[in-house]
Amino acid sequence: MTKARIIVDAMSGDNAPKAIIEGALSGAVEYGTDLLLVGNPEIIKLILESEAKKYQSSPMDTLPDIIIKESQSVVTMEDDPSIVIKKKTDSSLAIATKLLKEGAGDALISAGNTGAIFTAATLVLRRIKGVRRAALAAIVPLDNPFVLIDSGANTDVQPEMLEQFAHMGAFYAERVMGIKSPRIGLINNGVESHKGTELQQDAYKLLKKTDLNFVGNIESRELPANACDVAVCDGFTGNIALKLIEGMASFMSRKIKQLFYSNSVTKFAAVLTQKQLDELKRSMDHREHGGAVLLGISKPVIKAHGSSDAYSISRTIKQAADYALGGVIDALNDEFTKKKFTRIRGLFDGKEEIRKDEA
Amino acid sequence: MTKARIIVDAMSGDNAPKAIIEGALSGAVEYGTDLLLVGNPEIIKLILESEAKKYQSSPMDTLPDIIIKESQSVVTMEDDPSIVIKKKTDSSLAIATKLLKEGAGDALISAGNTGAIFTAATLVLRRIKGVRRAALAAIVPLDNPFVLIDSGANTDVQPEMLEQFAHMGAFYAERVMGIKSPRIGLINNGVESHKGTELQQDAYKLLKKTDLNFVGNIESRELPANACDVAVCDGFTGNIALKLIEGMASFMSRKIKQLFYSNSVTKFAAVLTQKQLDELKRSMDHREHGGAVLLGISKPVIKAHGSSDAYSISRTIKQAADYALGGVIDALNDEFTKKKFTRIRGLFDGKEEIRKDEA
Repeated sequence: MTKARIIVDAMSGDNAPKAIIEGALSGAVEYGTDLLLVGNPEIIKLILESEAKKYQSSPMDTLPDIIIKESQSVVTMEDDPSIVIKKKTDSSLAIATKLLKEGAGDALISAGNTGAIFTAATLVLRRIKGVRRAALAAIVPLDNPFVLIDSGANTDVQPEMLEQFAHMGAFYAERVMGIKSPRIGLINNGVESHKGTELQQDAYKLLKKTDLNFVGNIESRELPANACDVAVCDGFTGNIALKLIEGMASFMSRKIKQLFYSNSVTKFAAVLTQKQLDELKRSMDHREHGGAVLLGISKPVIKAHGSSDAYSISRTIKQAADYALGGVIDALNDEFTKKKFTRIRGLFDGKEEIRKDEA
Repeated sequence: MTKARIIVDAMSGDNAPKAIIEGALSGAVEYGTDLLLVGNPEIIKLILESEAKKYQSSPMDTLPDIIIKESQSVVTMEDDPSIVIKKKTDSSLAIATKLLKEGAGDALISAGNTGAIFTAATLVLRRIKGVRRAALAAIVPLDNPFVLIDSGANTDVQPEMLEQFAHMGAFYAERVMGIKSPRIGLINNGVESHKGTELQQDAYKLLKKTDLNFVGNIESRELPANACDVAVCDGFTGNIALKLIEGMASFMSRKIKQLFYSNSVTKFAAVLTQKQLDELKRSMDHREHGGAVLLGISKPVIKAHGSSDAYSISRTIKQAADYALGGVIDALNDEFTKKKFTRIRGLFDGKEEIRKDEA
C-alpha cells in the first residue's frame, strides 16, 4: 500500500507544538504514514527525540520517515484570516499550505485559525473546478457518526451551494467513512418542504432533483437519533449545531460525574458501571473521528480542533491518510466536471455530444 | 391574592383532550387558579367528572371555578396558519383567543399548531404598541433555566427585532423568573463583535447601546453552561438550537438507560443511584418550566409543547398565572412607549419635552 506523507502545521493550536508533534508521531507509527512537520526545527527535534523513546522497540519498517521544514512565525487566532496568508508568508500555516501545493506531501493538518486555514487553502490550493464554495465537513460522533456540512466556513450561502455541499458530503461519507448510498438530510425548522427561509426552501427543491439519497428536511431534534449520514446546512447554522452538540455532551458528562460523585454509595455504583461509562465516553468522543475536512479544495486539508490533544491529532493523521488515499478528490473532480456538462447540455440543447468532446 | 382565570384550548395537542384537561385541573388546584376550558362540552365534562374524584378530600376554597365554552372544530397541524383563524372561527383556538380578547380570562394556553397560535394572537389580540414582531420565548432547563427568544416564530428578522426580543426576554426573566438584571447573550458563531452574518453584527451594535446587561456574543457551546439568562437569536436559529437541546437530552437519557440496563451488575448500580438519576432527569425536564411564551402580544398567550402530558400542562398553568399576574405586559407597554419617546427625541432634537407631553 502507498504510504501517505502528512504535512503537519506543528506550531498552531492551543496545545502546540508538544501535543501536535506527539500526536503526529504516534499517529504516523500507528497508521503507517510519513510526516512533514512545519515549525521551529529545534523545538520539533527536541520533542521528537523525547517522544522517540516510546517507539524504540518498534520494527524499523513501521516507523515513519520524518522531514522538518522551518517556519518563522505562527498565525494566531487574532490574525485577520483575509490578509494573514499574504502577510505572514513565513508562518507555519502558509509554508505548510505551499508545501502541499508543491506536492511535498499528500495532505495537510492544522489545528490553527479556521478562517486562515480556509483562506489559505482557497487562495493557494484553489477549489476543485466547478465548486463554488469549499465547506467544512465535521464528523459528528453520536448514535451514528454523520457528516455535518457546512459546519462553519460559509455564513452566507446560496441554495446551489447547499446542493454542492450535499454532493461533497456524500462523497466523503461513501469513500472515507464507507457508508453506502449515504442518506442526505437538509437541516430545517420542520420536515415539510415549505419550511425554513427561502434558502432552505430552494435548496430542498434542488436536492429533490439530484440523484442523491435525499431523505428530506431533518429537524435538529432528530440529528442525534441517526436521522441521516450527511446533514446539510449553511455555515452559521452548522456552527451553532456543532458547538451545541459539543456543549450538550460536556454538560452531560459533568452531570454524570456529579451523579456518581454524590456519595460513597454512588461512587461504588461508578465502579460497577466503569466499563459502560468508558464506552459511552468513547462513543461521544469527537477526537475519534479527527478534524473537519475542507471539502471542495483541490488537495486534502483538515482543520483539527483548536484544543486538539495528542490523541486527537493521531486520529486526524489516520483521517488525513484515508482522505488522501480514498480517491475523494478525484471522484469530486469527475463529479463536478460531469455536473458542468449537465449544465452545458441544458444550455445547448441537442449539442451535448459535441460539447462533451470539446471539454 | 387575585385568582387568575386561565383559558385552556382543551382540544389541541397530541394528547388532547384528556391530558390537557387532566393537567389543567390539577394545575388549577395546585397553583390556585380558575379555568375556562374551550372544547367539546360533553367530553370535557366526562373527563372532569372522572378527574374530580382525586380532589374529593380537598378543601372547597382550594378548588377552581371552572367554566366550559363550546367549540365545534380543532385546528390541526396540517392547517395553514395564515388562513386557519379566519376560516375555522368555530375552532377551540379561535374561540379561546376571542375569549381572551374579551377579558373572559387572564391568559391562554394551547398545545396546538404553533404558527396558528402565533397568527391568532397577532391578528386577534394584537401586538403591544411599538413591538415590531412578537416572539416565542422558550424556557430551557439546563444548569440554569434560560429564556431562548425567538425560539421559532420568526425565521426572517431584522437587527432591530433582535434588540426588541432582548428587551422582552429580559422583562420575562426578571418579572416571571425572578432573575435580577438578567444577562443577555446574542447567539453567534464566535464571541468577537465582528462574528456572524450582517444580522448578528448589526444586532450586536444595537444591543451594546441598550441599558440591558448585555454580555456579548454567546457561542452555542456555552449555552448549557450558564452563559446567560436570555439567549437572543432569530427564530430559525432558535428552533434549531431548542430542538437540538431536546434531541441531545433524549439521546443522553437513552444512553444512560442503556448503560444501566447492560447487565445485572449495572442494574444494581442503577438502584444505588436512583435518587440522583431522578434528580438529573428532573433538572433536564422541560415540562417543569411550562411552555413557550408569546412575548410582545398584548395579552398572555402560552404555547405548550405539542406532546404535552398532564404534568406539563399543570406546570404551564402555573407559568400562565405567574405571567398574567407578574406585570410583564404592563411593564413592556411602558418600556415600548418609552422607547418610542427615545426615538422621537432623536428626531426632534431639543423638543423632547413638548413631544413627551403631546404623546
